[in-house]
Amino acid sequence: MAKEKLSIVKIGGNVIENKEALETFLEHFSKLKGKKVLVHGGGKRATYMASKLGIESKMINGRRITDADTLEVITMVYGGLVNKNIVAKLQGLDVDAIGLTGADVNAIKSEKRPVKDIDYGFVGDVKKVNHKAINKLISAEFTPVFCAITHDKKGQLFNTNADTIASELAIGLSNLYKVELFYCFEKNGVLMSVDDDDSVIDYMDSGTYEVLKHEGVFHDGMLPKLENCYYAIENGVSRVFIGNPSVISNKDQKFTTLYL
Amino acid sequence: MAKEKLSIVKIGGNVIENKEALETFLEHFSKLKGKKVLVHGGGKRATYMASKLGIESKMINGRRITDADTLEVITMVYGGLVNKNIVAKLQGLDVDAIGLTGADVNAIKSEKRPVKDIDYGFVGDVKKVNHKAINKLISAEFTPVFCAITHDKKGQLFNTNADTIASELAIGLSNLYKVELFYCFEKNGVLMSVDDDDSVIDYMDSGTYEVLKHEGVFHDGMLPKLENCYYAIENGVSRVFIGNPSVISNKDQKFTTLYL
Repeated sequence: MAKEKLSIVKIGGNVIENKEALETFLEHFSKLKGKKVLVHGGGKRATYMASKLGIESKMINGRRITDADTLEVITMVYGGLVNKNIVAKLQGLDVDAIGLTGADVNAIKSEKRPVKDIDYGFVGDVKKVNHKAINKLISAEFTPVFCAITHDKKGQLFNTNADTIASELAIGLSNLYKVELFYCFEKNGVLMSVDDDDSVIDYMDSGTYEVLKHEGVFHDGMLPKLENCYYAIENGVSRVFIGNPSVISNKDQKFTTLYL
Repeated sequence: MAKEKLSIVKIGGNVIENKEALETFLEHFSKLKGKKVLVHGGGKRATYMASKLGIESKMINGRRITDADTLEVITMVYGGLVNKNIVAKLQGLDVDAIGLTGADVNAIKSEKRPVKDIDYGFVGDVKKVNHKAINKLISAEFTPVFCAITHDKKGQLFNTNADTIASELAIGLSNLYKVELFYCFEKNGVLMSVDDDDSVIDYMDSGTYEVLKHEGVFHDGMLPKLENCYYAIENGVSRVFIGNPSVISNKDQKFTTLYL
């Protein structure tokens, strides 16, 4: 029997931080047909809140070090403020949303990132997506809204990259569904030329990706996103779409489709 | 057919604020047999966080005025920090917890408290408990953990009293279950004499309650709690137990049972 379709949509900090952009996105998301899951980052709001609370944001090589105080802020901002406001707004749009961290229903188990040169603190690498538990919610016609927090199933929460959460959820739920993964950000898609917003790549299979990568087409910010996408595709995810938030309800415009 | 038993347990700020007390309580809660729901307040952590963020906590007649900034703090602290840490700890104790506000699955709809003499701000009075949606979670063997936040189903979150949430959930779920409601606090039960911790009233029916109330036995803090309890009992809740947190897994000690 053909698997039912499931859409997993990831939105980043730029959408979260802008009230109007967020409301526009949520309207698009509410119109997306069929079963769906939302994953959101938190962006600069956590940094802003940490600074208001006098907690220094420590970055090494562009990555945030999550000490105990920073984890508290992330749990407040991502798990509380951002997540619950999105849930309330979706309910207002008649989407039967339920806000989750990876601790809820033991959805996403992770392990503290091993210390090599750097101790990232309370940062978790995903070990197991509990697709059966998550599917109980999806089957009950709820729409899970995940923030980028996981747990170790021993009582400890962890900060985890939201792109990773989206791809791991997509891989895990591919056991049960034909998963389409949407990464929404501020551009119309993956660009051939970073300075030209009209240079959107329409379709890119994994072979083309490898060639373009070695030609140095993709810049530093895009590369880990694309690696993440092809990791998902190689592990059972049907298609990945990259584009601006309106792509999820309207495909009469530019966006990038990635496939095997 | 006899209804299945459901335990709804409310814990207050004194338990939440003390790390050891919270862990002891959660162990008791993990041992409580059968289907169950946890409701928690947030206590002074929200006040503390607000003050760190430079937000003044406005109180009128001992009640907090919830302006927009205060609502943000409450959403962060109750909905994020407190709720998600409880969920993670319960998962560590093999309770399959899921953290919720009233916005999630549209569980608890409320309306802004009407302005008479005082505008309480973003404070919601409960209008409807969606017992069918909550029961989808309970039937799936999850243990809902509610913080004291509701919504208007139009995108707005509200601050709501945690005792009220517990009693309204208990009434709503009485449609489906034989509900036992536990209010856990720092005393061993309802006291005949406020200064004598050993003066616990074992059993109190609503008639006895009315008599003692008119005799002025109950002090100002206890009275609204008891009103709330009898309101639940008069609306379908089977029994209400009041005592210290250990009562939920061990009844070989003093506590108060309220009944019709």
